[in-house]
Amino acid sequence: MHILVTNDDGVHAPGIVALADALRPLGNVTVVAPDREMSAVGHALTLHHPLRATELAPDVFAVEGTPTDCVNLGVHRLLSNRPDLVVSGINRGGNLGDDITYSGTVSAAMEANLMGFPAFAISLATTGHDGYYNTAAAFAAQLARTIIVNGLPADTFLNVNVPDLPEDQVQGVAITTQGKRVYEGQIVAKTDPRGRHYFWIGSGIPDFSDEAGTDYFAVSRGKISITPLHLDLTNYASLEVLKNWRLS
Amino acid sequence: MHILVTNDDGVHAPGIVALADALRPLGNVTVVAPDREMSAVGHALTLHHPLRATELAPDVFAVEGTPTDCVNLGVHRLLSNRPDLVVSGINRGGNLGDDITYSGTVSAAMEANLMGFPAFAISLATTGHDGYYNTAAAFAAQLARTIIVNGLPADTFLNVNVPDLPEDQVQGVAITTQGKRVYEGQIVAKTDPRGRHYFWIGSGIPDFSDEAGTDYFAVSRGKISITPLHLDLTNYASLEVLKNWRLS
Amino acid sequence: MHILVTNDDGVHAPGIVALADALRPLGNVTVVAPDREMSAVGHALTLHHPLRATELAPDVFAVEGTPTDCVNLGVHRLLSNRPDLVVSGINRGGNLGDDITYSGTVSAAMEANLMGFPAFAISLATTGHDGYYNTAAAFAAQLARTIIVNGLPADTFLNVNVPDLPEDQVQGVAITTQGKRVYEGQIVAKTDPRGRHYFWIGSGIPDFSDEAGTDYFAVSRGKISITPLHLDLTNYASLEVLKNWRLS
Amino acid sequence: MHILVTNDDGVHAPGIVALADALRPLGNVTVVAPDREMSAVGHALTLHHPLRATELAPDVFAVEGTPTDCVNLGVHRLLSNRPDLVVSGINRGGNLGDDITYSGTVSAAMEANLMGFPAFAISLATTGHDGYYNTAAAFAAQLARTIIVNGLPADTFLNVNVPDLPEDQVQGVAITTQGKRVYEGQIVAKTDPRGRHYFWIGSGIPDFSDEAGTDYFAVSRGKISITPLHLDLTNYASLEVLKNWRLS
Repeated sequence: MHILVTNDDGVHAPGIVALADALRPLGNVTVVAPDREMSAVGHALTLHHPLRATELAPDVFAVEGTPTDCVNLGVHRLLSNRPDLVVSGINRGGNLGDDITYSGTVSAAMEANLMGFPAFAISLATTGHDGYYNTAAAFAAQLARTIIVNGLPADTFLNVNVPDLPEDQVQGVAITTQGKRVYEGQIVAKTDPRGRHYFWIGSGIPDFSDEAGTDYFAVSRGKISITPLHLDLTNYASLEVLKNWRLS
Repeated sequence: MHILVTNDDGVHAPGIVALADALRPLGNVTVVAPDREMSAVGHALTLHHPLRATELAPDVFAVEGTPTDCVNLGVHRLLSNRPDLVVSGINRGGNLGDDITYSGTVSAAMEANLMGFPAFAISLATTGHDGYYNTAAAFAAQLARTIIVNGLPADTFLNVNVPDLPEDQVQGVAITTQGKRVYEGQIVAKTDPRGRHYFWIGSGIPDFSDEAGTDYFAVSRGKISITPLHLDLTNYASLEVLKNWRLS
Repeated sequence: MHILVTNDDGVHAPGIVALADALRPLGNVTVVAPDREMSAVGHALTLHHPLRATELAPDVFAVEGTPTDCVNLGVHRLLSNRPDLVVSGINRGGNLGDDITYSGTVSAAMEANLMGFPAFAISLATTGHDGYYNTAAAFAAQLARTIIVNGLPADTFLNVNVPDLPEDQVQGVAITTQGKRVYEGQIVAKTDPRGRHYFWIGSGIPDFSDEAGTDYFAVSRGKISITPLHLDLTNYASLEVLKNWRLS
Repeated sequence: MHILVTNDDGVHAPGIVALADALRPLGNVTVVAPDREMSAVGHALTLHHPLRATELAPDVFAVEGTPTDCVNLGVHRLLSNRPDLVVSGINRGGNLGDDITYSGTVSAAMEANLMGFPAFAISLATTGHDGYYNTAAAFAAQLARTIIVNGLPADTFLNVNVPDLPEDQVQGVAITTQGKRVYEGQIVAKTDPRGRHYFWIGSGIPDFSDEAGTDYFAVSRGKISITPLHLDLTNYASLEVLKNWRLS
């Protein structure tokens, strides 16, 4: 059993340390993670530049790249054999609703899925710096065991969100759909110390439609949310509408 | 009519110049694009750093950021009013199958959709540096007019791929689903001029499952492919399987 | 006569456009400059990553790199023959006193000198965005002609600072020594839109010792300052002191 | 006694670990170093972007920035009090001759000098990945003690190069002048895995004029070289020549 662990908060983040520790009893764990925080990098792949990897400790690699790069480099070059499972996280903060398209954590699991490996992303829905990472880590180990036994459905990887609660206060597990963000962007315009203008994209406090069955609905009620995802973005419901358009 | 134009090949790329020129007869066009090539950056949003924008010419802005940043910055700060349409491209090279999750061009249209604007991405399936950008530009103008008249179906943005052919050799338009990539990654391990090791992710020649109805199937037969996309990555077919798992 | 022109404000900055225009009557001018602002990068050479160059217009190249990279790439790869002169600027803001060690503009001239080419850096001592670039450009042309005729003394490149005045108000030219900065650093500690801490180095308003004969002294009295520089940082006055230390 | 330690090979490099260990018996040591390798960044100061610092362990900070940034951030924000000494290194590879103008290691000591602190840079003249860092570390401790007792001459910081030898094979200590590089640049032109062109600056094997009294001369004969440096780049010998030029 060989598990590849990555994240987008960087190799030194508390979430990945807790995750790797929780998974080690299951088998051989190799950590391949960005050397810096890489939040919101989406499914970015570094094609334009080369990548560097440094082995910080046995089976712990820091990569000057994105989480997607880490999965690629891990599978093709750094691991001694192919992984049986890829786990990404534990992300600091939830990855919910449409916002998962921005997520480096979720994209790492997407990349593993694209390469044919069972994979899940796991995030702790904390808003502060600290949180109950142990709750998420323990669930990650349980889920990993289940996947090793059951496998995953075809064309599926999982997005897991864990409420920031002590383990005994978690209200169970829900299988959910991806929720919808209520968009409220903001951009701050400021002046730097040299008097030059710049902009800074603020994430604000993300807000989601509180619809039953969604990831957001579950987590905000103290449940662990598991959403099965796939790579197919086709909106099948729109195919017929478009076929009636006259384009030549 | 105000159209926001962006891309991921950078503000100086031939595709975006052809696109903006083709759309100008329809209304006011503002170009907000990365100052450098930003291919394969996915749906990356720059939260960690501030952004800079430079107005290179009237209504042409270069941004030190990703295509997703450009849409945000354009809508919130650089455009004088809200856009009626967002068009991203013309990408150098097709954006087909699962590979669209990597695409900065497609992600810009995704971002516009998330913000509530009609949007499409358009790519020219060329493999070389040059290509029939005029074919794609003419179709972009036609499609833009259609969208302005018809609107888009709910929760839908479009991914358009144009074969690299003279306009009169195009074999029509197909409404398609997202194809499947046959994964074949490669990573090159090399030594830099100072003798230090590095890796470089190679995209190889992407290969796709040649299934009828897909984007790849259409483009490889000389047709323009239009795939309706949405932001929902939920794999609904897997929900029931997971609900039978015993997780606590 | 072939002149290589570079800067650190980026290829689109008004200073480099004015400079190239002023030098074109003297011969063939090739502009090789960073695609983005690269202020305060010092004598940085990109060894860790590859470099990309884009030809924006005939004999105008944008490089994803530093001014020092631009001189290297220009000389070794982009110019059709070896330059007779390298001119760096016109920098937005003076490059005075010890601060020249930070300057990308001055470092480009340093690099040219290291490679064996006559070179000077030229800066406009403006504090705002606009300024009398024409004053500096006209002087650059005059100085270039003089260097072509006279050559430069051995192991010497020049650092030129021009007061931000109309040409007819300039109070002459002074040959100067490098002044001394009165150090007053500042670092701003702030919180980004996501609530995470960061620091920003502020340059403050640089202040210099107002000593007769220095670059600062001349420019602050409306004179053009020319300081001959070399690459030798040895403090010869300290050699004897150190020789009396007992180190083994 | 508080010593600030930095480098340009990054916070995880063996040289800085050896250096900090050797200096700890002298007092309180705080390490503030780049999170990534930052070789050849010269005296680059990050003014355009904010900086992030992460405390990896007590009194060990990783900064997303240059060595010059590290000294600034360390002095102004991260250290509890002002340092009595700043030491930069142990660099992997010598910093000799004109090449010191590129060096991030030497520039960190330059920055400390500019801010008014005693400082030296120390480099191990190794060409491979490993080397006798202990030789350099032991000498660093000895030199630090000497500077604490004697102080440094006015306007002086030191550039120390240690031959890559076991301690008992070192041939003594020489007070030297900065040598001269025999310039031999090279740029490699290549094609990336996607078929796009790029350039890579090669440092080649640097060669230096073998002149008695220089840093290179000493190190190549097995001696430790100490060169006193200052910030004044004025070439005083050229002042008179330029004063005879007729410029108006």
